[in-house]
Amino acid sequence: MQPTRLEHFSDGVFAVAITLLVLDLLVPGTDGSLIGALADEWPNFAAFAVSFVLVGCIWVSHHDVFRAIVRVDRVLLFLNLALLMAVVVVPFATALFARYLAHGGPQSNMAGVLFSGAMLLMGVSFTAVYTRATRHDELRSQPAPAPSLNRTLRFSSGMLVYLASIGLAFLSAPLVLILTGGVAVFYVADQLGAQAAG
Amino acid sequence: MQPTRLEHFSDGVFAVAITLLVLDLLVPGTDGSLIGALADEWPNFAAFAVSFVLVGCIWVSHHDVFRAIVRVDRVLLFLNLALLMAVVVVPFATALFARYLAHGGPQSNMAGVLFSGAMLLMGVSFTAVYTRATRHDELRSQPAPAPSLNRTLRFSSGMLVYLASIGLAFLSAPLVLILTGGVAVFYVADQLGAQAAG
Amino acid sequence: MQPTRLEHFSDGVFAVAITLLVLDLLVPGTDGSLIGALADEWPNFAAFAVSFVLVGCIWVSHHDVFRAIVRVDRVLLFLNLALLMAVVVVPFATALFARYLAHGGPQSNMAGVLFSGAMLLMGVSFTAVYTRATRHDELRSQPAPAPSLNRTLRFSSGMLVYLASIGLAFLSAPLVLILTGGVAVFYVADQLGAQAAG
Amino acid sequence: MQPTRLEHFSDGVFAVAITLLVLDLLVPGTDGSLIGALADEWPNFAAFAVSFVLVGCIWVSHHDVFRAIVRVDRVLLFLNLALLMAVVVVPFATALFARYLAHGGPQSNMAGVLFSGAMLLMGVSFTAVYTRATRHDELRSQPAPAPSLNRTLRFSSGMLVYLASIGLAFLSAPLVLILTGGVAVFYVADQLGAQAAG
Repeated sequence: MQPTRLEHFSDGVFAVAITLLVLDLLVPGTDGSLIGALADEWPNFAAFAVSFVLVGCIWVSHHDVFRAIVRVDRVLLFLNLALLMAVVVVPFATALFARYLAHGGPQSNMAGVLFSGAMLLMGVSFTAVYTRATRHDELRSQPAPAPSLNRTLRFSSGMLVYLASIGLAFLSAPLVLILTGGVAVFYVADQLGAQAAG
Repeated sequence: MQPTRLEHFSDGVFAVAITLLVLDLLVPGTDGSLIGALADEWPNFAAFAVSFVLVGCIWVSHHDVFRAIVRVDRVLLFLNLALLMAVVVVPFATALFARYLAHGGPQSNMAGVLFSGAMLLMGVSFTAVYTRATRHDELRSQPAPAPSLNRTLRFSSGMLVYLASIGLAFLSAPLVLILTGGVAVFYVADQLGAQAAG
Repeated sequence: MQPTRLEHFSDGVFAVAITLLVLDLLVPGTDGSLIGALADEWPNFAAFAVSFVLVGCIWVSHHDVFRAIVRVDRVLLFLNLALLMAVVVVPFATALFARYLAHGGPQSNMAGVLFSGAMLLMGVSFTAVYTRATRHDELRSQPAPAPSLNRTLRFSSGMLVYLASIGLAFLSAPLVLILTGGVAVFYVADQLGAQAAG
Repeated sequence: MQPTRLEHFSDGVFAVAITLLVLDLLVPGTDGSLIGALADEWPNFAAFAVSFVLVGCIWVSHHDVFRAIVRVDRVLLFLNLALLMAVVVVPFATALFARYLAHGGPQSNMAGVLFSGAMLLMGVSFTAVYTRATRHDELRSQPAPAPSLNRTLRFSSGMLVYLASIGLAFLSAPLVLILTGGVAVFYVADQLGAQAAG
């Protein structure tokens, strides 16, 4: 099987999921200050931006991994389907987190746990796709380069932060936004840095 | 006619339909326990997962069937459109089933009938596409392999379960979830097994 | 300019618009008979089916027209954008028509006028794309065949029915459903017949 | 990296965002004159049309820019992601502007500022993509033509109008609709004129 349709279908799901994030931005009622109402909705904007960048980075990495793939087997097909399922859940987890963050209170900690968990799920399922795609040379146009410690560390750092974020959510829900936002900034900087270096 | 655009359009509809399933997951109100509210919403999560996997499996099979197709005629084009119409109805049938399952009562049995029926419709319309695509060698790069009894049995087993599920829905609505979930697990296992065997 | 991306983008818009039609199907409340509630919602199902098939037929025809196109100029690009705008409006016109048809009363006649008008708009803008694409040989891999009276008649019959439907909507809103549904059946039969004949 | 998947993914996001604009068109309640209710909703239709054409023009320009691109680097990938984020925000900004325009009052001026700002953001992020794609010959199949003053003026005129519109929104919110609608008409006319001239 060639990867063309897997790429098309995945691009479609990524594109729809990333665009559905905009449904989490709510148009305020017209009976007050618009700026005030939007300011109260800051968790929606912040969570939208973090989720957009994190899903975007997974798409960039998906793109990277499949560049070298010339054949797709069923295991890779279903691992990719699991990744897409995690991506599809992101708009739900984002809306839920934003709503509870705006409301505050002890339940927002649990919402932070769930948001971090959704990001971890996306990271873990991407890792499964990545591992399958790099360890099986019969699927590739050329063998994958040997993994370097440096690369592995950078790769897994995001997931370690998500894991920490699940625990730290019990201390503070806004901290989850800072941690996941930090991962988003780190991934963009890391990928731009990889280009500058290479 | 070449199959390229049929594949693009189908990939687009599959991608949008499978992503719209997330709209069936509802963000709970902020006036109670978040975990409790999500636990009460378990039918939504279960029906989301079953529908996601079943639509995903139909996409994988669609991919398989069209790999050998080099020409598309109008009959195949319209059978494919009928399949896509069935796929598009899935998010509606899923939302309806989840809502009635959460509410319980005698009406949930009828919701189970409709959900099983939607899945049967998707299976039957896929079978029509499959039959057209394998029985007409002028559409193919190479003749289809002769159908084996074993393959035919595995292929139709899902639809037999959907049919049984329509009847058994009158006994118990949650049973519908177990039966269709069983089909989802069976299809994934069967396709992964086919690779291990081949 | 090559037509590849115009086709991708158009396939995307067609796929999203045809799938958004499902949002017009409403999950009934749980406080009564499910079958009764769905039966009351019959205009939604009927309008969904008619719009799905009519948009699907426009996609099939779009596919047909662009098969022979090797270059796209800006006029064709913007005519195509106008067609896509008409396609995007269809889910709105469908939801509006279904709601007023279910409610009945004199306002449903006006809703029938608008629904017929939306279909006419889609037909007219497709005709504009078709005309540009067939009259300009510099855009084509081979000159378009000379138009036959028979073909022109079949092509324009749908638009004549839409036009009649705008007028007849004032007599009866359900008649609009019958007329547009008739066009849908006619287009599918005509295209399948063209294949049987060819 | 080849631009194929960047184009697919971008086409997907453009297609979903432009189609989601239709969710800003609201089906009126059935308890009054349909025409009257739709007439009251004129800001929604006007804002829908303006946003559809402006996003459509950005897609046409995106198409133009990437025609000459044969390699994509990470900077271009992330600038493109920033552009897509701006595109995704458009349905939200459009819905917000339409709602406040229909309601009137001083808050609608602020809504006009935000709508103009969203369009400016889309223009600026497209300019960033354009600049990267034309200034780096190693990404191109042939060097970009030298920029002409005429072209640069036409290119930036839209953004100057958006900037003016942010200020003039404080005088009148409907003026924002006229200004952004003017940009839409200008871009379509300019691109059709470029073809007539070339």
